[in-house]
Amino acid sequence: MARGRFITLEGGEGAGKSTQARRLEAALVAEGIPVLRTREPGGAPGAEAIRTVLLGQGGWDGSWDGIAECMLHFAARREHVERTIRPALAAGTWVVSDRFADSTLAYQCFGQGVPRAAFDALAAVALEGLRPDLTLVLEIDPEAGLARAAARGDTNRYEAMDAAFHARVRAGFRAIAQAEPGRCLLLDATGTPEGVAAEILKVVRARLLP
Amino acid sequence: MARGRFITLEGGEGAGKSTQARRLEAALVAEGIPVLRTREPGGAPGAEAIRTVLLGQGGWDGSWDGIAECMLHFAARREHVERTIRPALAAGTWVVSDRFADSTLAYQCFGQGVPRAAFDALAAVALEGLRPDLTLVLEIDPEAGLARAAARGDTNRYEAMDAAFHARVRAGFRAIAQAEPGRCLLLDATGTPEGVAAEILKVVRARLLP
Repeated sequence: MARGRFITLEGGEGAGKSTQARRLEAALVAEGIPVLRTREPGGAPGAEAIRTVLLGQGGWDGSWDGIAECMLHFAARREHVERTIRPALAAGTWVVSDRFADSTLAYQCFGQGVPRAAFDALAAVALEGLRPDLTLVLEIDPEAGLARAAARGDTNRYEAMDAAFHARVRAGFRAIAQAEPGRCLLLDATGTPEGVAAEILKVVRARLLP
Repeated sequence: MARGRFITLEGGEGAGKSTQARRLEAALVAEGIPVLRTREPGGAPGAEAIRTVLLGQGGWDGSWDGIAECMLHFAARREHVERTIRPALAAGTWVVSDRFADSTLAYQCFGQGVPRAAFDALAAVALEGLRPDLTLVLEIDPEAGLARAAARGDTNRYEAMDAAFHARVRAGFRAIAQAEPGRCLLLDATGTPEGVAAEILKVVRARLLP
């Protein structure tokens, strides 16, 4: 049996990652491909427990030291990878994840100033070489993205951070996509959901479908 | 102002670490030394929130992947080090901690088989070179230690693990102490609390007091 493919959706707040993950799942299922749609932080029972603490709902306000925060993300990611992602891929199921390691790189390193070397060390320990086959980076002006997120009543600790932080995160995602063009694709997320979905499907067909 | 000294107490369940930490604190205070007594996992607000999840009280049973568990311990330790330990040492306060990084090495690596390289990578990221000035490893036969812990009604996930696990943890603590004789001292913890405390104070006087 062929190993499943691992696709991640990345980008700032309100870029439409969850919507596009659902649309991509539906499109792949329509092609007869078994799909597991998941998200981070979370995606496994232990990871969801860490998510609660991470987002400041576990008895502490969530104003973490940057390196501690990276470690929490990678602890959750390790559970997600070991319990959910690797078993699915091994069973031939495709995995579509709303956020993965690039979010930690963009938010904690580019956004909050955690050294890249710390990220690399943690990624090596937690992922043991696992990387997405394709990463779709949805790009939107942070102001427009935050307005979208606010309109759907979905606010979190990061959404409350200042404009300069969100500009650094956006620049981070762009730098990640440019550094790994074989894995990543930068997509303009300002269009209609249908238009963005069509573009994503075109890329997936070209790169991953036989 | 002189930097404070950092002393850790290590060892298996029921070895008397908490008791000896309290006695050592009292003895140092009696010498006019400012002391902060703390413990792991915990010792800072974020670290205590992680402790809850780590010990399986946060909506997940706590049967972590070994590497995820190491990362959670180091995330908590990072908060403990940055918010509590380093500020105290910088202010000239001595820190006495009931458990520190050696517990992760003994329990997760020696006990559960997590690779030493993963521990070393996480320790480098989280601690940035901080190490105890003195580590007292309290040694007790695991069976006797577990009986002591059970008698005080103090049971946790580790105490419920099998005899072979506790034997590996004990061997691990011994190996750690033997590998770093300049930092660590292996102490027989089967004597009376008064006797063990007297021995600890003798070592502290010889190694750390002017």
